[in-house]
Amino acid sequence: MRNLELFNNKAVKATGVSALLMAVAGVAFAQDSDLAAQVAANAANDDFIFTTLLFLLGGVLVMWMAAGFAMLEAGLVRTKNVSMQCLKNIMLYSVAGIMYWVVGYNLMYTGVDGGYFGSFGPYSWPGAGEGSIEDGSYSVASDWFFQMVFCATTASIVSGTLAERIKFWPFIIFVAILTGILYPITGSWEWGTGWLDARGFSDFAGSTLVHSVGGWAALAGAILLGARKGKYGADGKVTPMLASSIPLATLGTFILWMGWFGFNGASQLAFGTIADASDVSKIFANTNLAACGGVIVAVALTQILYKKIDVTMALNGALAGLVAITAEPLAPSAFSAIIIGGIGGLIVVLAVPMLDKLKIDDVVGAIPVHLFAGIFGTMIVPFSNSDASYLTQFIGVVSIGAFITLASLVIWFIMKVTIGIRVSEEDEYIGLDQAEVGIPAYPEFVNS
Amino acid sequence: MRNLELFNNKAVKATGVSALLMAVAGVAFAQDSDLAAQVAANAANDDFIFTTLLFLLGGVLVMWMAAGFAMLEAGLVRTKNVSMQCLKNIMLYSVAGIMYWVVGYNLMYTGVDGGYFGSFGPYSWPGAGEGSIEDGSYSVASDWFFQMVFCATTASIVSGTLAERIKFWPFIIFVAILTGILYPITGSWEWGTGWLDARGFSDFAGSTLVHSVGGWAALAGAILLGARKGKYGADGKVTPMLASSIPLATLGTFILWMGWFGFNGASQLAFGTIADASDVSKIFANTNLAACGGVIVAVALTQILYKKIDVTMALNGALAGLVAITAEPLAPSAFSAIIIGGIGGLIVVLAVPMLDKLKIDDVVGAIPVHLFAGIFGTMIVPFSNSDASYLTQFIGVVSIGAFITLASLVIWFIMKVTIGIRVSEEDEYIGLDQAEVGIPAYPEFVNS
Amino acid sequence: MRNLELFNNKAVKATGVSALLMAVAGVAFAQDSDLAAQVAANAANDDFIFTTLLFLLGGVLVMWMAAGFAMLEAGLVRTKNVSMQCLKNIMLYSVAGIMYWVVGYNLMYTGVDGGYFGSFGPYSWPGAGEGSIEDGSYSVASDWFFQMVFCATTASIVSGTLAERIKFWPFIIFVAILTGILYPITGSWEWGTGWLDARGFSDFAGSTLVHSVGGWAALAGAILLGARKGKYGADGKVTPMLASSIPLATLGTFILWMGWFGFNGASQLAFGTIADASDVSKIFANTNLAACGGVIVAVALTQILYKKIDVTMALNGALAGLVAITAEPLAPSAFSAIIIGGIGGLIVVLAVPMLDKLKIDDVVGAIPVHLFAGIFGTMIVPFSNSDASYLTQFIGVVSIGAFITLASLVIWFIMKVTIGIRVSEEDEYIGLDQAEVGIPAYPEFVNS
Repeated sequence: MRNLELFNNKAVKATGVSALLMAVAGVAFAQDSDLAAQVAANAANDDFIFTTLLFLLGGVLVMWMAAGFAMLEAGLVRTKNVSMQCLKNIMLYSVAGIMYWVVGYNLMYTGVDGGYFGSFGPYSWPGAGEGSIEDGSYSVASDWFFQMVFCATTASIVSGTLAERIKFWPFIIFVAILTGILYPITGSWEWGTGWLDARGFSDFAGSTLVHSVGGWAALAGAILLGARKGKYGADGKVTPMLASSIPLATLGTFILWMGWFGFNGASQLAFGTIADASDVSKIFANTNLAACGGVIVAVALTQILYKKIDVTMALNGALAGLVAITAEPLAPSAFSAIIIGGIGGLIVVLAVPMLDKLKIDDVVGAIPVHLFAGIFGTMIVPFSNSDASYLTQFIGVVSIGAFITLASLVIWFIMKVTIGIRVSEEDEYIGLDQAEVGIPAYPEFVNS
Repeated sequence: MRNLELFNNKAVKATGVSALLMAVAGVAFAQDSDLAAQVAANAANDDFIFTTLLFLLGGVLVMWMAAGFAMLEAGLVRTKNVSMQCLKNIMLYSVAGIMYWVVGYNLMYTGVDGGYFGSFGPYSWPGAGEGSIEDGSYSVASDWFFQMVFCATTASIVSGTLAERIKFWPFIIFVAILTGILYPITGSWEWGTGWLDARGFSDFAGSTLVHSVGGWAALAGAILLGARKGKYGADGKVTPMLASSIPLATLGTFILWMGWFGFNGASQLAFGTIADASDVSKIFANTNLAACGGVIVAVALTQILYKKIDVTMALNGALAGLVAITAEPLAPSAFSAIIIGGIGGLIVVLAVPMLDKLKIDDVVGAIPVHLFAGIFGTMIVPFSNSDASYLTQFIGVVSIGAFITLASLVIWFIMKVTIGIRVSEEDEYIGLDQAEVGIPAYPEFVNS
Repeated sequence: MRNLELFNNKAVKATGVSALLMAVAGVAFAQDSDLAAQVAANAANDDFIFTTLLFLLGGVLVMWMAAGFAMLEAGLVRTKNVSMQCLKNIMLYSVAGIMYWVVGYNLMYTGVDGGYFGSFGPYSWPGAGEGSIEDGSYSVASDWFFQMVFCATTASIVSGTLAERIKFWPFIIFVAILTGILYPITGSWEWGTGWLDARGFSDFAGSTLVHSVGGWAALAGAILLGARKGKYGADGKVTPMLASSIPLATLGTFILWMGWFGFNGASQLAFGTIADASDVSKIFANTNLAACGGVIVAVALTQILYKKIDVTMALNGALAGLVAITAEPLAPSAFSAIIIGGIGGLIVVLAVPMLDKLKIDDVVGAIPVHLFAGIFGTMIVPFSNSDASYLTQFIGVVSIGAFITLASLVIWFIMKVTIGIRVSEEDEYIGLDQAEVGIPAYPEFVNS
């Protein structure tokens, strides 16, 4: 419309052929240029929306993983600690959600620039109707949301290992530090374009940055906290402490599996081109195949080793397969994805009794699943992705592991010698639901 | 291709420079005009799809909240009424889904025009392959779906408060009237562009229109229905009636939290521009922060007040935070969102014992969560949104509250004096699962 | 930018009016042509992403149905078989996920061409960053993912019917054959453009191809396997075997209902145009209305027939309504969708006792829900879709039913006479959790 008037005005006023000619050329050009700008703006608009949508959908799916961890852990602890495990999981997600705004995001992403951490202070996104900062290719608030749920995932991993004996408030303090400081620091090394990124470390969606970080923090806690009373006898005998609800644990696993499509898929960080959409699709397929591989190996292996099919191993096999593929869910072929996931399942079945030999009491098996399979997944990246090197992967695994373990040990230790991190023997005996929550999980069922 | 032939045909036939010149100009223009129309059509196409997708995704997430309410309520009632609570929740969602088609949608949205209600009669969307009505900016069927699940949410709120003693069929009759008539009428006042909208009332996603409406209807019912036998002693003593399953209630809360991203996010009602996508992202972030605030305040407060951390308060704190931010999830800063949600959590912790003092028996705490936090959320809108005024917000809260409460009292009362709304004392004692459903929730556990 | 230089270069070198004129025309045309190509590329890009997104989202929702089946079945079996039912469901999804890659997809979709099956061999999608095969209109990996989860659904159906007495490994072998061979073969007849498609058979999202296929396979297994011990007395008396957990079954139903929006909605197979987005929206609305109809009919009917409202019938009513609308969720009016779903509910309430009379022991009611409602849904297609004929629908139902039933009978029979398909009487008595899994579902509750 606007162009049409322009044409008429200019054309009518032209007096000679040449002038008219120039006018025509100019108008045609102006029109084209206007239209070309419009076309480019439309493309940028769509690109922005697609990638923002990827972050929002991925974020919702990863947020949903908080429910998955809650159900998995509520199902795997004993009945007398189920309410507490529910409480811890909703609380840790809430603390993570706020800490990652208070300090975490900027520490991880703002001004890292090849270094070791970013800046301190709350993150702020533009106000309502202001659009995005700097006309980027996605909404910064959607990015914050997506990164925040990853951070929360890390804390969820810790809560399972330390269940049934850790005090509530020290655990929450640790979560606040982990999600506000520790996770963002090592996160900044790679995803915040810090020194590890500069060295070429490769961790697509966080086998190391999320899962191993949670696993190291859990391991440090488990060592300082000690095993549950009665778990390991003086004679080296391991007393099984049975899961309170297999269906809840199964539900939790399915939720986590579902959420992992957001976890890995949206870590493509772009969805506005055919190439990106195709890559996200491959990630979905590989992620699923790896989990399938983990389940089948765990099921077959427990059948062979124990003559029974351990359903909790099948569940953890799925999760280990997912953790293993997370460092590189795009590059492997379908067959490789199955094998990588299958090795994850193998790791879990072999590592769970190994930890018991070391008398490290990991209530839900989070250390084999998230730490061991996470290390494996990170180290195997160069197998399918030629941009990665085994040495650099090793440097990343070790440096992040060292930092998180050391920092966690210090924090747990300080709390241990000050406020204490472990409930009293009596409280452990009666269960945390009665001791700290005051509300039993299933008051009408348990005849204690 | 088509344009190229046009050019050749016209150009070849031109005999003079001038004619050719005009032809070139004309063709260039025609081409541009064709292309410009195509560009505009493409943009409109994408805009349509993005917003329709927002409605569909948001709708699925809010539909999922029906499962959240079902699990929350099944977890919070006693074991002997769990099957009934499951039944009520799937039935009320079904009745709402049909009533909102039979009469609700048109009553709420068609021809309200500053008035008090729309038109009567079933809503119909275009047939297969016919595209949308009037070439709008989204599919009308997607809009219907999205609005329908909101309507169902309202009914879910009522079912929790009245659990364990209301008769099934009178409850279902009330749901049919609520979802077909009452909710659509007050909904029309604001979202249907009725009189409250004309006055500038502001309720982004329904703190009042959905949550308070459900809360008022529940309150009216609770008053006429009376408390569960044994809940309030003659001496003013309150007998706690413990929740049957904390993990189910926790699961329900996580489901509701997840669904709320659709509830608030998709209430932006548009997703085709950078500005809209950015706003939806901010809504996601604020919605999450508010819920986090609600949890943390409820946890800290119950620790201080009762020396135990009440997990059901943590769950209701999350929900109250979500309800509080729902009236205005876009305008507040991150910090404000945390505070608004935190006050929601505060309200719940303080209001639950208050209701008990008034001997209003609200089985799941839905009145504090949905009504009180809903009123607060609506009244606090002008704090962050300068387009809203405290007076108008007050008028909206009161007028909608008065209408829904009065209408609900009348309906409940008529049923009370005719068919009766409360089960017999014996049925209440043995539980509704045995009395009305005939199927216990956990037949192999309960040793009654 | 590039065009601007082109213009200048060419224009400057032109020496006469005519030459200049031609240059202008040529440039204008070249610009337009470039821009037009860009516009077309952008449109193709968006179209590709939208449809890929539909497959990914639909796929995640249908993957989530695996959790729905797991919860539904874990809730409907007796407590002593709950762990096993969890195990079977995560394992069958894993086996299906791999078998559909190993052989299923190609057998169903590659080179069928009017025939009876496709080609053998693993399916492969392009490597990372390679985009899609043949510049299609969606990512082939997303399509694989979407089709894979449908395949897994089929296996889930079988697991419910045969619960509580079938051996684990024979069941898994059957699942591998079903998902790798049987389902893909009959799938190829219609969705793989095989002979039934050529005849005009119409099954939009799989009332027959998915649900009835699962139902026939389950029926064949149930006949050869026999009923659970004690279910049918010599005097024709049926002993009810109560569901272990109604809330889990309810959760499973809600999950399935949610997943069905992906199941039916994404079966539109395109989302890049206003027409497609509108059609998907109508499918969402109709799918929901049909489920509502199924619930209400089942609730009302059990109230009338049995004076109690059977909550398991309400749940199965929802599912039967969903299965019934699946063959044609787009063409029916809203009212028709309610009626079609309502008849689904009717079928379930009437068929469950009928199967008991035939002493066919279907633990979860999967045969009425998936087979009978699936047949009804397929046969009713011509009522709303004039492109379909009753005769062709009948041919499709019968031919697919005959093939799957026969093949299943043969496979079950071979296993029966070789490795055996049924656990020992003692194992059945103590329950599969103890016999095969070694882990009780709720170790602290059951006092057996």
